[in-house]
Amino acid sequence: MSEAKMILPRTGIGLDVHAYASPDLPRPLWLGGLFWEGERGLAGHSDGDPVAHAAADALFSAAGIGDLGTHFGTDRPEFAGASGVTLLTEAARLVRAAGFEIGNVAVQFVATRPKFGPRREESQRVLSEAAGAPVSVTATTSDGLGFTGRGEGISAVATALVYPR
Amino acid sequence: MSEAKMILPRTGIGLDVHAYASPDLPRPLWLGGLFWEGERGLAGHSDGDPVAHAAADALFSAAGIGDLGTHFGTDRPEFAGASGVTLLTEAARLVRAAGFEIGNVAVQFVATRPKFGPRREESQRVLSEAAGAPVSVTATTSDGLGFTGRGEGISAVATALVYPR
Amino acid sequence: MSEAKMILPRTGIGLDVHAYASPDLPRPLWLGGLFWEGERGLAGHSDGDPVAHAAADALFSAAGIGDLGTHFGTDRPEFAGASGVTLLTEAARLVRAAGFEIGNVAVQFVATRPKFGPRREESQRVLSEAAGAPVSVTATTSDGLGFTGRGEGISAVATALVYPR
Repeated sequence: MSEAKMILPRTGIGLDVHAYASPDLPRPLWLGGLFWEGERGLAGHSDGDPVAHAAADALFSAAGIGDLGTHFGTDRPEFAGASGVTLLTEAARLVRAAGFEIGNVAVQFVATRPKFGPRREESQRVLSEAAGAPVSVTATTSDGLGFTGRGEGISAVATALVYPR
Repeated sequence: MSEAKMILPRTGIGLDVHAYASPDLPRPLWLGGLFWEGERGLAGHSDGDPVAHAAADALFSAAGIGDLGTHFGTDRPEFAGASGVTLLTEAARLVRAAGFEIGNVAVQFVATRPKFGPRREESQRVLSEAAGAPVSVTATTSDGLGFTGRGEGISAVATALVYPR
Repeated sequence: MSEAKMILPRTGIGLDVHAYASPDLPRPLWLGGLFWEGERGLAGHSDGDPVAHAAADALFSAAGIGDLGTHFGTDRPEFAGASGVTLLTEAARLVRAAGFEIGNVAVQFVATRPKFGPRREESQRVLSEAAGAPVSVTATTSDGLGFTGRGEGISAVATALVYPR
């Protein structure tokens, strides 16, 4: 029983939203750790990748060690313009440094585009390598409703499991 | 330790949104695997059941094998008009075929109506039978805010746990 | 193997949204089990704490025993104006009475304010004591989009793990 308790997982949750950049200040689109040529980009200090950010926040949440603001805020200026993949890599390192192993992370984003299916496995490969654990990425739409339906931005929600070592 | 690792679960997440059908093109309401007599229906190629769809997407997400679009897209026309219960049944079959057992699925939907409490256990029975594992279904509102608060549609979010065999 | 199966966890999900109170009927803000002096409060029969409510709903969801409406509805008037911390305490008691142990709960809320970081650990302490298990609380924004971006209300989403005894 005591041995079994050693592997009890902890769940975490992470949400992230980024608005599309203004047409006057076009930016590249980074989503799911990938660059999407010809697609309208998202605003943000970083690369604005809501999938990578939600994944990082879910890991922090599961470990109970804060959130993106805690770890990548103004007191760590070296992460000011960091890519989502860099943030996820660092989040996974911090979670392990806090005494946890990572089980898996699952992220779903809500957007009308880009067409994600053809690059889903590529995205999962990039993010899984960053986290050092399986990251699944899926996509859906909000059927034309809300800010994602109006094409104002992209939202993502993630869950993660971690295990105390 | 190696035996313990055999049962490490994987978490998944699934979201789904369906807008209400136009009053000009009324449809029946299917929600949580149940038909709701006299209630305004949701739009969609299928029966538009966001609870069953979110549950299916959470299972796919946990197993890391894609999403509803991957499995029930245009290349599988036999699922074009399928019910949510049929899609959830097939999703559970695909997840098991990929080498996983299903622990449980939990879904919450956001809507002002119908009154769900009296039929919650019936809904859980239908969806649990479809998944071959416990499916819990709960309901809440968004306190009048957003598209669910304005009565434009119903959203649902689900988590699932699966175990590699 | 049968011993291992005894500790298979179950996942749950909980969402909660509360609109800000009207300026004509100002209320105190309760969020994450804490009182926030000088902040605009949320509407609701209870203290309107979406973090505590989402946590309670995620526990009910994981155990498969209904939701806030099931347990704190009109047939239990003693909870009509209860605080979020009281509801979470009672939810944890009900989940244990149904035969489950609580692994952990993770909640993230979406709001532009208050500044949460400085009081995050205090919030986690209060809610963890209420649940009798670790509760992590994190914060994010919706980048100006949707009802949280417009400052109409605060939303929260939670996951929980429970274990059948």
